[in-house]
Amino acid sequence: MAAKTITLTTDFGLRDPYVAEMKAVILSICSDAVIVDVSHEIEKFNVRMGAYILASATPYFAKGTIHVAVVDPGVGTERRPLLIQTEQGFFIGPDNGILILAAEKQGITSAHEITNPRLVLPTVSNTFHGRDVFAPAAAHLASGVPPASFGPVLEEAVKPDFSKVILDKGVLKGEVLYVDGFGNIVTNVDEKSLARLHAKASVDVTLRKTRRKMRFRKAYAEGESGEAFVLLGSQGYVEIAVNQGSAAKKIKAKPGDKVSFSCKSSKP
Amino acid sequence: MAAKTITLTTDFGLRDPYVAEMKAVILSICSDAVIVDVSHEIEKFNVRMGAYILASATPYFAKGTIHVAVVDPGVGTERRPLLIQTEQGFFIGPDNGILILAAEKQGITSAHEITNPRLVLPTVSNTFHGRDVFAPAAAHLASGVPPASFGPVLEEAVKPDFSKVILDKGVLKGEVLYVDGFGNIVTNVDEKSLARLHAKASVDVTLRKTRRKMRFRKAYAEGESGEAFVLLGSQGYVEIAVNQGSAAKKIKAKPGDKVSFSCKSSKP
Amino acid sequence: MAAKTITLTTDFGLRDPYVAEMKAVILSICSDAVIVDVSHEIEKFNVRMGAYILASATPYFAKGTIHVAVVDPGVGTERRPLLIQTEQGFFIGPDNGILILAAEKQGITSAHEITNPRLVLPTVSNTFHGRDVFAPAAAHLASGVPPASFGPVLEEAVKPDFSKVILDKGVLKGEVLYVDGFGNIVTNVDEKSLARLHAKASVDVTLRKTRRKMRFRKAYAEGESGEAFVLLGSQGYVEIAVNQGSAAKKIKAKPGDKVSFSCKSSKP
Repeated sequence: MAAKTITLTTDFGLRDPYVAEMKAVILSICSDAVIVDVSHEIEKFNVRMGAYILASATPYFAKGTIHVAVVDPGVGTERRPLLIQTEQGFFIGPDNGILILAAEKQGITSAHEITNPRLVLPTVSNTFHGRDVFAPAAAHLASGVPPASFGPVLEEAVKPDFSKVILDKGVLKGEVLYVDGFGNIVTNVDEKSLARLHAKASVDVTLRKTRRKMRFRKAYAEGESGEAFVLLGSQGYVEIAVNQGSAAKKIKAKPGDKVSFSCKSSKP
Repeated sequence: MAAKTITLTTDFGLRDPYVAEMKAVILSICSDAVIVDVSHEIEKFNVRMGAYILASATPYFAKGTIHVAVVDPGVGTERRPLLIQTEQGFFIGPDNGILILAAEKQGITSAHEITNPRLVLPTVSNTFHGRDVFAPAAAHLASGVPPASFGPVLEEAVKPDFSKVILDKGVLKGEVLYVDGFGNIVTNVDEKSLARLHAKASVDVTLRKTRRKMRFRKAYAEGESGEAFVLLGSQGYVEIAVNQGSAAKKIKAKPGDKVSFSCKSSKP
Repeated sequence: MAAKTITLTTDFGLRDPYVAEMKAVILSICSDAVIVDVSHEIEKFNVRMGAYILASATPYFAKGTIHVAVVDPGVGTERRPLLIQTEQGFFIGPDNGILILAAEKQGITSAHEITNPRLVLPTVSNTFHGRDVFAPAAAHLASGVPPASFGPVLEEAVKPDFSKVILDKGVLKGEVLYVDGFGNIVTNVDEKSLARLHAKASVDVTLRKTRRKMRFRKAYAEGESGEAFVLLGSQGYVEIAVNQGSAAKKIKAKPGDKVSFSCKSSKP
């Protein structure tokens, strides 16, 4: 039974006391929970980035793991607190789209609004639902309270408008999802989409209005000095990278930028 | 029995090996301790900021939790190592004021100087009491050693000179305690002090020599675009905030700045 | 039996999901492992800095602890994955020198290349061996799999070319190993090497082509305002420091800089 692992993903940073308060609440309710930090360095209010980080990390956790994610610009408004059950585990956070990418990957089996006042803190602030709602809900869930006790079934959760990948006349159109700490530019193009291009040793990449021919590489260390190249990254998405350097510094791309891939052999 | 949780608050940062060395010492002595990081990003040598973060986070931990805090500009001098017992738990750190705000909130029942050489590391460096004194003391305490074994009773601990809130002719005078990662300006004015102003929908705030009329808001998301407003924050202190923006960037306030609140209806 | 502690040292940073993925893999295989972060803020690709941080932190962990370190610019190339057993514990990481300083301190008893496909993830990416090779290997080791099951004995591991300390005509020649978060300049001169100088109250330090006479101090707090002084630091190496200030800012030293110590009384 490895069901007591609770992960945390927030935009709170590590300097402030907020993450510790969430952990304190969790351990007060469920003293044998094992808490794992996914990231607390999500850009403030950047729900898309939180959704990407969460969707990247969660596939590696054991069945039954409970994932709490709080990037919550709407805290104190009408946005609902959400508990999603999937075939692999559970997701808890605001109903603003942050949970959906990760939860859909696992197969959603049910969703509940968290309304039961006995499963959150006695006083719920208007500003910090991470501590007052999501942390205690996760701890009660880890302690064995069934999802249905948390509140009514929620028929439709908010779906984020993160753009999809389109193949249009031999051009694969997507966008930059994330720039990691190494400066690798992660796009939303996954392996399956890329396969539709039938590209071979290289591909034309258009980013920030500039088209560049780039080679495919299998490992960062294969890149030549200063060369920007294309690689299928360890998170399952196509990346643009530079060996021991920063692709994002070279190309100045940022999340949200449109990116397209094409090649002469790409006509079906 | 949730008495084995040990929290850590330091100004060591997360790059250097110092925090890991404290954890290694703790786990070597008490292998089933659960260690929770409060913050290691306290500004170097800023005892007041450490005291604020510690006092914010500690109320949420279970009874019996041991809190270690090390912001210690005087390490190697005559300042004493301190163990405080409260009605809720324990505090260990240098006797320089860092523990007092948090410990007084919980009700201090006793204080001991840590002098017993068998309860610290065999060799105590002049530079790193976090690892050599405070971590082993916390681990021995978690293992069941009673507070009185650590050393003589300490009649008077150092009280930090953090300023108090004064109501003077209808003006509530305090200071900025902290600026959090969102740019919220946290003052030392708590709910009870604020109530003495009898303010209604808005209040005059004087900060950095400028007086501004600000509305009270109940949630960050209630603020209009770019508006600086006043809010009772989740840590129990009055904050100045901007919805999805940084109040500290707008107003340029920093910890230690004097702040005053007044309103026409505030005369009793 | 405190054999289930696994430590992690990487250059992944704390924003990206990579560290969490390693923890997820470890906990999936060995659910009662206790994971301790040493540092994830190693400068990207800086094997020497990783080696120093690892060698600093590891002596404080209990016998049997498993240390995983991943600063891995050669991931995806022919560099081998390595498991070292010492008299105190285990080290797992790339065979690029990152493990050697720490492992040699503990006394190496055997080294194995990790080649057994049943002890790593079913699919090993070319870019992320931390998650796909080193994390699962550590978890299987923590679960009781013996070192010999991981692969063939490795006769010779890569030895990093970190320079040694030389005493030449009364001048002790070393280099800067690290600059910590407080700005202390840590050199590779240890207590034993320093003793050979027979220095007394002060020593001449040559760094960045400038010779400065510096006093020995026993604690940071003994330094006078703005004074750069020499101190035997808590990690066992000679440091140049400034009380409540940054020596690295004052002197502009950085890792790799040559440093020498001499004094008139140093002739044997």
